[in-house]
Amino acid sequence: MTKSNKSLKKIYLDYAASISPNPNSIHALGIQAKTKLQNARVKVATILRSRPEEIIFTSGGTESNNLAIQGAVLAWREKKLPHIIATNIEHPSVLETFKILKKRRLAEISIVPVEKNGIVDVKKIKKEIKKNTVLVSVMYANNEIGTIQPIREIAKEIRYYNKNNRQGLFFNRPCLFHTDAVQAVNYLDLNVEKLGVDLLSLSGSKIEGAGRVGVLYKKKSVLLTAIFGGGDQELELRPGTENLPEILKFSKALELVQKNKEKESKRLTKLRDYFFEKLHHSNILTNIGMMINGDKENRLPNNINITFPKIPSDLLVIELSAKGIMVSSKSACKSSRREGSYVTDAIRSAEDGLLPAGRSPSSADEIGGLRFSLGKDTTKADIDYTIKILSEILKKLKKWYY
Amino acid sequence: MTKSNKSLKKIYLDYAASISPNPNSIHALGIQAKTKLQNARVKVATILRSRPEEIIFTSGGTESNNLAIQGAVLAWREKKLPHIIATNIEHPSVLETFKILKKRRLAEISIVPVEKNGIVDVKKIKKEIKKNTVLVSVMYANNEIGTIQPIREIAKEIRYYNKNNRQGLFFNRPCLFHTDAVQAVNYLDLNVEKLGVDLLSLSGSKIEGAGRVGVLYKKKSVLLTAIFGGGDQELELRPGTENLPEILKFSKALELVQKNKEKESKRLTKLRDYFFEKLHHSNILTNIGMMINGDKENRLPNNINITFPKIPSDLLVIELSAKGIMVSSKSACKSSRREGSYVTDAIRSAEDGLLPAGRSPSSADEIGGLRFSLGKDTTKADIDYTIKILSEILKKLKKWYY
Repeated sequence: MTKSNKSLKKIYLDYAASISPNPNSIHALGIQAKTKLQNARVKVATILRSRPEEIIFTSGGTESNNLAIQGAVLAWREKKLPHIIATNIEHPSVLETFKILKKRRLAEISIVPVEKNGIVDVKKIKKEIKKNTVLVSVMYANNEIGTIQPIREIAKEIRYYNKNNRQGLFFNRPCLFHTDAVQAVNYLDLNVEKLGVDLLSLSGSKIEGAGRVGVLYKKKSVLLTAIFGGGDQELELRPGTENLPEILKFSKALELVQKNKEKESKRLTKLRDYFFEKLHHSNILTNIGMMINGDKENRLPNNINITFPKIPSDLLVIELSAKGIMVSSKSACKSSRREGSYVTDAIRSAEDGLLPAGRSPSSADEIGGLRFSLGKDTTKADIDYTIKILSEILKKLKKWYY
Repeated sequence: MTKSNKSLKKIYLDYAASISPNPNSIHALGIQAKTKLQNARVKVATILRSRPEEIIFTSGGTESNNLAIQGAVLAWREKKLPHIIATNIEHPSVLETFKILKKRRLAEISIVPVEKNGIVDVKKIKKEIKKNTVLVSVMYANNEIGTIQPIREIAKEIRYYNKNNRQGLFFNRPCLFHTDAVQAVNYLDLNVEKLGVDLLSLSGSKIEGAGRVGVLYKKKSVLLTAIFGGGDQELELRPGTENLPEILKFSKALELVQKNKEKESKRLTKLRDYFFEKLHHSNILTNIGMMINGDKENRLPNNINITFPKIPSDLLVIELSAKGIMVSSKSACKSSRREGSYVTDAIRSAEDGLLPAGRSPSSADEIGGLRFSLGKDTTKADIDYTIKILSEILKKLKKWYY
């Protein structure tokens, strides 16, 4: 055995731990895997401007959101039921988790409606914060209409509240601020210190080339309780053998996104605005009374969301698909359970004060919004072609629906 | 647009749903993805002899076990606290979940000790079942010592109990039977009907070439409640965009394992028994008083687990690793939290009735078991070399520890 370590004969007799080396094993290959895992953690932390030990790898965005919300509620130690706040256009993995916690009598919830532009009024969030509020969860950018929420401003209000109300010796748990940044990752600044958040969720499924894993950034001082029972991986907050191959892909892809963020955001903002402009100059579209869903400026560079009153957006998705154009009628994560979009409902309700007489929520539901989300392969020619096809489809459908 | 569908220009404007097509989208690429997902589900169901709609894809074995156990407890609707039963050598994702549910006052738990051969006595399980028992969870094969549990026999007792005690109109929820088959997948029969289980967990991390996903088989009549809030994927029991690329890899790998199961089991059983034989013929090993952990026959074809009294198994892992041999000192899933193995503790306690005077559980802990788990690349020459190196290491260490 005088050969160097590299040429040393290697016999793997740890198949029961994992087919590929498991970062929890203490032999050389396990330690190698652990080092790779740690490097990936450092990469993600560097982009978020956090410490490596503040990065928790999960199975995806849904789990990250659940761990942040359920974890904060389960960690609450005061006698009074914990209280949590979200907007009415959060992703289902936030809103449904809120409902579950309420149903299980584990938390009291407040759902703050957004304004008609799809953006929440910071004062309305502030008004809801009270003594037993453990967490506010506001998404960075909406998955359906792309509107960007005033995260820094909300963080400031929460910090101010904590400073003035949570400094007592016996009540030193601050109100936490969580943001679901799953849709923001490709285009917006992820510096957690600048954002002022305590918890931030990411998902690999929205990042080109990333593995199917999620991340939860958790500020070091924040106390969470694990949802799953099991091993002590990921700060004892996420048991289960770490998905190392996918984590490595995730960290590399996030680095690439970060590098191209500025340039790609500019390119897509131009394309998005070109899309809006073309929509406005199309007679058929404007005649039908097209509505743009969500603020036109304060939205993701890659998001266009429109409604044609009376025409179900699901039908438009299918018609466009038949012509080779893949778009979405609402958050795909929620597609099979209900027909409509609670997000476009939310902005309509804000517009009208309440839903107008003769228009029940279910009819609004049927219409929903049509979402075009651009990406790395999208070109100006794609948009020209899409508008052309959309106009043709609407000309055909107009006869039936108007 | 007279071209055939295949040559039709495709424009993907659904990046916000997912970088790769999302099975929840209703456009053509979404439906294509959904079909692939369904095919994978059918493949897995065929191997388990279940229906496709009884297969739930999760993020891994830990999540599958948590969903089975927490899901059954949360779905319980009677006033009396639900009661759950497991053995004392279950995987941490079962045992820790039991502890969590007890701590949160969501369930009453019974932990049944295994016998000194690492196998549970069916009568001892039977004795624990009572009116409010919602679930019995017994692993198919143990991750540390490889012992195979009498799953069919336990299932028979539970069926008998249900037939005689749970047929009332107001109490028609049967006691469920869950098995963690994560370690069994490569070698044992997975026919859920023959096994008689209601719930069965699998993990891709233990299958050559499989993606990092898990499966929970759930018999159609079984009621579970989801742990996570979110979309309605996977029978509304596991929200989050399905990890399609990894699911496809999983289903293909499981098919391959199934095809080679019999042949590979035979090959490894021979190698395992050869390993045991060589151990017995090594003077140094037998002089030191080596103990074999777990039943020698009724164990996985790929598992060898031994203890050398007085010599910490962690030290042996490191010494072997320095010589290029990767083995494990205990379940890697639990490595960093505690030093020892609760599994080898469990069989020692059963041997002794209780721990012998002068040997505290912590000293037993320090020693633990040394696990060699064989796999597809393992050869007879590997075993010869391993025994040779192990003997050399023990000769060296004997001076210090004896």
